Amino acid sequence: MKDEDKLKFHMKLRLYRRERDFGPGVTALMELVKEKGSLSAATKEMGMAYSKAWKIIKHAEEDLGITLMEGRSGGNSGGGTVLTKEGEELLTKYQQFTKESQIEAEKIFKRIFADFDS
Amino acid sequence: MKDEDKLKFHMKLRLYRRERDFGPGVTALMELVKEKGSLSAATKEMGMAYSKAWKIIKHAEEDLGITLMEGRSGGNSGGGTVLTKEGEELLTKYQQFTKESQIEAEKIFKRIFADFDS
Repeated sequence: MKDEDKLKFHMKLRLYRRERDFGPGVTALMELVKEKGSLSAATKEMGMAYSKAWKIIKHAEEDLGITLMEGRSGGNSGGGTVLTKEGEELLTKYQQFTKESQIEAEKIFKRIFADFDS
Repeated sequence: MKDEDKLKFHMKLRLYRRERDFGPGVTALMELVKEKGSLSAATKEMGMAYSKAWKIIKHAEEDLGITLMEGRSGGNSGGGTVLTKEGEELLTKYQQFTKESQIEAEKIFKRIFADFDS
């Protein structure tokens, strides 16, 4: 059996207080904002409408009670968007959480499905 | 802070070969088919259209290369639906996989987000 045909798994983790809205979408946006210093550049890279990005960010901020990113005005760069300190901390924790959970799930998957494709 | 306002996480695990289509939806249907002995009773319980259920089951069966459930004809019960042996085995493995992964993720979550709400 080709590797691409073998059984695999996909894990999705979301953080929330009352609604499940801080997950792969928002964090991908945050990573790109961090890299590019601009929300519009981040949405362009993701092929996501700016209005949709704005909505999912505001939704997550409301649920979590944290401001995730903020405008940075003026200067040579002519403004842009940066992650807040709290946003950056949450992103780092989320990345650590997903990374470690993925590693543990891989061990469990290998054990439980060891003889599945044989 | 009330418990319902505390930061939580939600994990979603899907199994697949080429497409991510064996997850919470199909397995909830399978659990209900196992309990009720009928796909139409299962979809009714879930508030899901029969045609949609049929589609997601066929989609998963095609991707996995496994028949998950089959018609059981006649008898006093007048037919119904049962899980195949392979379907039942896969369901059990998926349940074990999600249960153990959830337990590990909870430990990681508690460690990483220990001081988040304090």
